Amino acid sequence: MAKTRREELKAKKQAYVQEEITSAAADLFATNGYRSVTIDDIASSLGYTKSVVYYYFKNKNEVLWTIFDQIIQTWTHDVEDILAAKSSPVQALAEMIRKHALNVLERTSWAAIYFSEQSQLSDPQRQKVDAHRREYTRHFKDVYSQGVKEGVFRDIPPLLVIGGITGMANWTHAWYSKDGELSPEEIADHFVTILLDGCVTKKGETDR
Amino acid sequence: MAKTRREELKAKKQAYVQEEITSAAADLFATNGYRSVTIDDIASSLGYTKSVVYYYFKNKNEVLWTIFDQIIQTWTHDVEDILAAKSSPVQALAEMIRKHALNVLERTSWAAIYFSEQSQLSDPQRQKVDAHRREYTRHFKDVYSQGVKEGVFRDIPPLLVIGGITGMANWTHAWYSKDGELSPEEIADHFVTILLDGCVTKKGETDR
Repeated sequence: MAKTRREELKAKKQAYVQEEITSAAADLFATNGYRSVTIDDIASSLGYTKSVVYYYFKNKNEVLWTIFDQIIQTWTHDVEDILAAKSSPVQALAEMIRKHALNVLERTSWAAIYFSEQSQLSDPQRQKVDAHRREYTRHFKDVYSQGVKEGVFRDIPPLLVIGGITGMANWTHAWYSKDGELSPEEIADHFVTILLDGCVTKKGETDR
Repeated sequence: MAKTRREELKAKKQAYVQEEITSAAADLFATNGYRSVTIDDIASSLGYTKSVVYYYFKNKNEVLWTIFDQIIQTWTHDVEDILAAKSSPVQALAEMIRKHALNVLERTSWAAIYFSEQSQLSDPQRQKVDAHRREYTRHFKDVYSQGVKEGVFRDIPPLLVIGGITGMANWTHAWYSKDGELSPEEIADHFVTILLDGCVTKKGETDR
């Protein structure tokens, strides 16, 4: 029993350190670009030697992939949560816009890495990211198409609407400043208002 | 007179060749990234030797800056044209959204360079690009603020609206494909519809 407890603590500590490394690396990659950051930089930003980082990660690519994997899992999980609630298309789309905007605005380092560092991945890794993006887009598209069928959304090509919606939020990583006057929540709410007004028909208004 | 005519022809030819080089370079920079393209690559894509390119440009940075300068001048000119027409805020904003989207969608190599290669500019060059962006944003902001004052636009922080509007269009460079089903004009028109619906008040509807 004592040993099991010790193992448990060790596993917890390892998970904690791994997360600590991933998070520090994400900040460094986002600020300085993946290519100019070394394992040494990651280690010393945490006061570790690089052997600590190498205990958890084979190489820098594995750190990068761990970050991509976390991003993909979080975003997928969020959108699946919204779909599981089985709300009306109007409410589901509102939630999806809000959550997407918040995900970009609240973890700016993730957005910077996801949008700028895909070229640093291996081919199989990039294929996984592509598959995730197609799946993620498909969820948006399904909700929009369902809304068009029900007459609550304008009959505009769904992929164009989705490209516009996600683009509005994605582009915030180019101008949003944490020191600005608006919080991520305020920006997300305004985007929901602007975009829903742009997509919803008179009939759909009652669902808002 | 004969000499002047010859000089005129020479100047025309030089302007043509310079434009040809700039245009070929823009395609190469957009496709392969500025850093991995050489003066040799630019020259040989046109069937020239590199001495031809060096006749017109001191170095690769000068080619890049010429492209940035063309982009800035074109975009500034377009927005000033719209403002000169002194239309209502609703119509001016509609035109500005449409033109901005078209500028991103129709010259995808320009957008790729403008959005991805600013880090390759010198400090004074980057300052000029920043000054242009501030000026460009200010034009949008002025039109939006005027519309809020007249009660035709929603009272949402203008910079947020402008960030959203330009973001929707700018992000198309991440997903728009020339082989897709929609033309730049169709995409621009849909964006105008979505975004105006999101910004215009009941009172503003009559201006559309």
